[in-house]
Amino acid sequence: MSERSDTFTIPARRGRAVRLNRGQAIKIINTHGQQVVDTWCFNAEDLKEFMSMEHIRPTIGRIFPHKGDHLVSNRRRPMLYFEEDTSRGVHDTLMAACDDYRYGLLGCTEYHDNCTDNLFAAMRHVGLTAPECPSPLNLWMNIPVDPEGNTDWGEPVSEAGDYVVLRAEVNCVIAMSACPQDILPINGRRCAPTEAHYTILG
Amino acid sequence: MSERSDTFTIPARRGRAVRLNRGQAIKIINTHGQQVVDTWCFNAEDLKEFMSMEHIRPTIGRIFPHKGDHLVSNRRRPMLYFEEDTSRGVHDTLMAACDDYRYGLLGCTEYHDNCTDNLFAAMRHVGLTAPECPSPLNLWMNIPVDPEGNTDWGEPVSEAGDYVVLRAEVNCVIAMSACPQDILPINGRRCAPTEAHYTILG
Repeated sequence: MSERSDTFTIPARRGRAVRLNRGQAIKIINTHGQQVVDTWCFNAEDLKEFMSMEHIRPTIGRIFPHKGDHLVSNRRRPMLYFEEDTSRGVHDTLMAACDDYRYGLLGCTEYHDNCTDNLFAAMRHVGLTAPECPSPLNLWMNIPVDPEGNTDWGEPVSEAGDYVVLRAEVNCVIAMSACPQDILPINGRRCAPTEAHYTILG
Repeated sequence: MSERSDTFTIPARRGRAVRLNRGQAIKIINTHGQQVVDTWCFNAEDLKEFMSMEHIRPTIGRIFPHKGDHLVSNRRRPMLYFEEDTSRGVHDTLMAACDDYRYGLLGCTEYHDNCTDNLFAAMRHVGLTAPECPSPLNLWMNIPVDPEGNTDWGEPVSEAGDYVVLRAEVNCVIAMSACPQDILPINGRRCAPTEAHYTILG
């Protein structure tokens, strides 16, 4: 993808945060097609209110959101409207952001980039301190659930250039992490995390 | 159930908290068979470490825990060992604790008892301040998930006297709320929340 002046990069294995005014939207692009982007949304006026997966599920009656859903906060208020999705709609709300503990359990003996630290770093970069790492909306993450409730680590079913558009229903801060998971095939069977991109829509 | 000296009541619509030393266990009893008990576990030495549903799911590879599972914290350390379960093993990790916002959305115009406030009150009663309301382990809550990811509000499939035993793997504080939900049939089709009971095992 060519980098246009209004298109910003989320570098591979890194995070970015951006402020959205109510009514603005963000288009998050799966540039190379196999990259999971962990996504968070905080109320800009009170960071303790944030998009919450455990509050979204009872509100929409589904374990992952579709285009047309309102994504609610831990106070059950709409924060983001899920306006567009060019992919097949496979995203995840079940799994915590990866963290240093996780990579330790996966056998890493040295520090491994991770979405939790990416969230805190991205928020610091825009002058904010995330109060915690809420469970993220894992865009394009493919977690099949079988009838017995067993989960699996699938590969994304998205294509290069797929995107979602999320429209702010409150003044908010969006944080995103191009997930650095390279041990499980969650970012594709090559286990090679890539960059992703975003643009802000008026 | 007769109230023995070592058996404690969780009154209908209310919460209770209790400290467990590492190695002790709690037996939580579904006395009348149809009562959901929202359950939390906090590290007694650092309340910011708590049992975390979004960290349990990737660890056990299932959307609800079974007997034999270790229930991990937001730092991915085992906090509770799920030692016994006389019920059919239908519990929930997907849904947030009910709260005043939730009952407002369900049409209540006056305050409604709720599990979130019960958590904070129960913790205060043992001299502690919960740092937040983590997503609870909803014992006996029956949330069927269909192949498309749609969820439903089922009735418990448990029987009177069913119990679980959770053994502490760290010094911890257990909080429980006998869920006051009386609008949806989550506590049985009569929508009549009941008491539950617990005992501490050495």
